[in-house]
Amino acid sequence: MGVPGAEENSSGLIPLALECWSPNRTEFARTNLFFVEVKMKIDVFPHIFPRPFYERMLTVSDAAARYMKRRVRDLPMLVDLEKRLRLMDQFPGYQQVLTAAGPGIETFCDPKISPELARIANDGMAELVAQHPDRFLGFAASLPMNNMDACLPEVDRAIQKLGAQGVQIFTNVNGRPLDEVEFRPLFEKMARYDLPIWLHPARPSTFPDYMTEKHSRFELWWVFGWPYESSVAMARLVFTGIFDEFPNLKIITHHLGAMIPYFEGRIGPGLDQLGSRTPEAE
Amino acid sequence: MGVPGAEENSSGLIPLALECWSPNRTEFARTNLFFVEVKMKIDVFPHIFPRPFYERMLTVSDAAARYMKRRVRDLPMLVDLEKRLRLMDQFPGYQQVLTAAGPGIETFCDPKISPELARIANDGMAELVAQHPDRFLGFAASLPMNNMDACLPEVDRAIQKLGAQGVQIFTNVNGRPLDEVEFRPLFEKMARYDLPIWLHPARPSTFPDYMTEKHSRFELWWVFGWPYESSVAMARLVFTGIFDEFPNLKIITHHLGAMIPYFEGRIGPGLDQLGSRTPEAE
Repeated sequence: MGVPGAEENSSGLIPLALECWSPNRTEFARTNLFFVEVKMKIDVFPHIFPRPFYERMLTVSDAAARYMKRRVRDLPMLVDLEKRLRLMDQFPGYQQVLTAAGPGIETFCDPKISPELARIANDGMAELVAQHPDRFLGFAASLPMNNMDACLPEVDRAIQKLGAQGVQIFTNVNGRPLDEVEFRPLFEKMARYDLPIWLHPARPSTFPDYMTEKHSRFELWWVFGWPYESSVAMARLVFTGIFDEFPNLKIITHHLGAMIPYFEGRIGPGLDQLGSRTPEAE
Repeated sequence: MGVPGAEENSSGLIPLALECWSPNRTEFARTNLFFVEVKMKIDVFPHIFPRPFYERMLTVSDAAARYMKRRVRDLPMLVDLEKRLRLMDQFPGYQQVLTAAGPGIETFCDPKISPELARIANDGMAELVAQHPDRFLGFAASLPMNNMDACLPEVDRAIQKLGAQGVQIFTNVNGRPLDEVEFRPLFEKMARYDLPIWLHPARPSTFPDYMTEKHSRFELWWVFGWPYESSVAMARLVFTGIFDEFPNLKIITHHLGAMIPYFEGRIGPGLDQLGSRTPEAE
């Protein structure tokens, strides 16, 4: 793929070579060129490791460093800006709102170090947005969720000083649900800013698929576990009443809302009929 | 609803009163009647408690009895045959292959008692099929999965003596995955019979959604947990190689294959790219 000779023209169409692919191709035969209608596409949930963040991350723990290096080896554009820009070039009209790649800082950082890591991530994303405003329209700030005393001021700094469009959190905080009272001030603050919370799934392979095991196998913690996590986190926020408390709270969930759109018929009619079967923990 | 005056006629159409609903209605104005084209619909995964099984079940444990009574109060046609037939009447052409309603016998029965319960369930379903062959086309046998020495002969008895079309198992056996070696002879046997295994999800509310909790809340163990269970069980059977060992093994999964059809794009390309990330348990 690639966009050889791509140039905007007055019609808002960009000429592309024959072999270029676009899901929205509008074809006009003209010598050897086709025309592709450029649609604006804003990707609000791509992931990145700003380089200073990545480098600091590698020093935090050996286990984290091994995991991160393996991820970046498979997906070099997470760190390599040139590779990222060349990949983006293949999709005319495509722009990104940046979010730091998972896992959450709190999963590999001590509460003493996590605030520093969040600041480095946020400074790094803000710098990328300043340098490439045509590519990166903004960012959602990373947060040190294992240190709420540092987390809340970092939200203010990221939004007020760095221009963050919102914040990113994960579906659990080291295994804890987001509806725990300790995290409530974050939701309150974001509702007050009227800016969204990006919600990314998180589940480690140590969350087993079977109660008699200690480890998920065959990457199933990720394949099915992440959509499950997102769905459960969404349901828990709803059923614990957070939208009643903060009606203008906005949450952007990853992966098209995970299981929710596909299982609407199970959620709605199912809970209407059978929703009282579970005894709450005694 | 109902089918007042319904009679088959030579065209294979059954006259229905105006207020009757059918998703496949073909209308022919003729006095005050409409005609409904009767399509054969075989439901291969409806649930039932044959009455003798239900009554024996109530004597097995107080906790099970409380749970079962609550389920049957909400869904009386699980036990009440007349109510079931009247419900089925509303859908012309609708027939059932019976399976016993969950949970699996092994979840509420000691291994000494579970084989007896399975026999009562299977005798009960075979009797219903014999009495109502126009309604019930067959059944999948229940099994005592916590007693494999009794389970395997019960498979033979159900298929050879009672005419079962296959067997039903659940996605875990008291928390254990189906790929454990103890359960392998069942798969081998069903492959040899060339008859299917019905696979029903199972997850109790005691399987928590968050690692820091002991209990799933808001019925989420069932809403999302069951499709997750089915999906993981399907993937585990595939990746542990059971279809390589028994190529003609047939498994009928509940709920349209759960998450699999909707997440095909995550499963295939996702595992192609990231499927080597999980370190297997050391």
